[in-house]
Amino acid sequence: MNGRGKFISFEGIDGSGKSTQARALADHLRGAGHEVVLTREPGGSPGAEEIRRLVLEGDPDRWSAETEILLFTAARRDHVEKTIRPALEAGKVVITDRFADSTRLYQGITRGDLRGLVDRLHEMMIGVEPDLTFVIDMDPGTGLSRALGRQGTEERFEAFGEELQVKMRAGFLDLARQFADRCVVIDGGRAIEAVAADVARTAEARLGAPEGTEPR
Amino acid sequence: MNGRGKFISFEGIDGSGKSTQARALADHLRGAGHEVVLTREPGGSPGAEEIRRLVLEGDPDRWSAETEILLFTAARRDHVEKTIRPALEAGKVVITDRFADSTRLYQGITRGDLRGLVDRLHEMMIGVEPDLTFVIDMDPGTGLSRALGRQGTEERFEAFGEELQVKMRAGFLDLARQFADRCVVIDGGRAIEAVAADVARTAEARLGAPEGTEPR
Repeated sequence: MNGRGKFISFEGIDGSGKSTQARALADHLRGAGHEVVLTREPGGSPGAEEIRRLVLEGDPDRWSAETEILLFTAARRDHVEKTIRPALEAGKVVITDRFADSTRLYQGITRGDLRGLVDRLHEMMIGVEPDLTFVIDMDPGTGLSRALGRQGTEERFEAFGEELQVKMRAGFLDLARQFADRCVVIDGGRAIEAVAADVARTAEARLGAPEGTEPR
Repeated sequence: MNGRGKFISFEGIDGSGKSTQARALADHLRGAGHEVVLTREPGGSPGAEEIRRLVLEGDPDRWSAETEILLFTAARRDHVEKTIRPALEAGKVVITDRFADSTRLYQGITRGDLRGLVDRLHEMMIGVEPDLTFVIDMDPGTGLSRALGRQGTEERFEAFGEELQVKMRAGFLDLARQFADRCVVIDGGRAIEAVAADVARTAEARLGAPEGTEPR
């Protein structure tokens, strides 16, 4: 149980539109009277943002896969303690652009088979899982050209190219099957508004009425 | 087994003289023909030094105990990968001013009873233990006045005062009993040279002849 609030994550390959959809859902739910905290990973709290910089800046090979997983877990612990849990306990809706599923997948696929390690650290140090996870599905070629067309700053994970995107897409769909109770796969290859309408409908069905209002 | 080299740690309360003794032993062993790497924690590799700064600078309460343990474990993993293990594999003697015993004790005593968590993370992510650990024992009052007399920079752990020092001393002696196969308690309340002579004699007895020389 995640306090009185609801915890929603967005996952998907780079360029899938998950950040856009996370913002759109936040706006929609605010319009419907929910109190919403929109956050992201890696980062999402002042301490976690500092750790994010430590991990993402500089030579990509400066940290081993294991050290990187420890740093991401430290950042996530801080994000949960300082941002996510207080908001949930206050009855708010927390929407995060990426959460642990991204680590399960990226660290597992790109840096050796460390999924078991990621899962054990998650269980020991994080515990919390989203109530609802949107996996925004997208053709990898389309996603990649969208991602590369953006003004990238520190998105070094995108440098791995289309082969990785194909693996990542398959990985996210596989995670959606592993966590079928909380994951909903959304076809992201349509107009933003059509995707957003799907997302909003699904979220509302799971959320119920805003905190403090009575069902009619 | 720690490769072909030997791994020696120094532990003890603040002001016990462990840093002085670590340096003295490094000098002594170099003079006897050993190749020695002298290092310290937290820190000991460029990445670990960055994490050290992240942990020790700023408000002491900015990280929870759990996040701090994750950050120290990440720093230690980097220290082991980049500094300690390569030196041991090259047959060198590695001397470190503090290692995992300090985390076992400080995190356990000062920030709630998290010894179990520290131990599990150590087993999962670090694994390596010193071949020989010197616990420099010292009357807490003497140690504290020595530590406070120094030009302290980031030694925020010393701010906890004498009551903590008393607990720490008891804790280090207890650790020396738990890890009796590798720990040697040295009376640090004597002249530096007398302590150094004890340390050198013990280390030489455990080390044998320098790498590359034949026993006579």
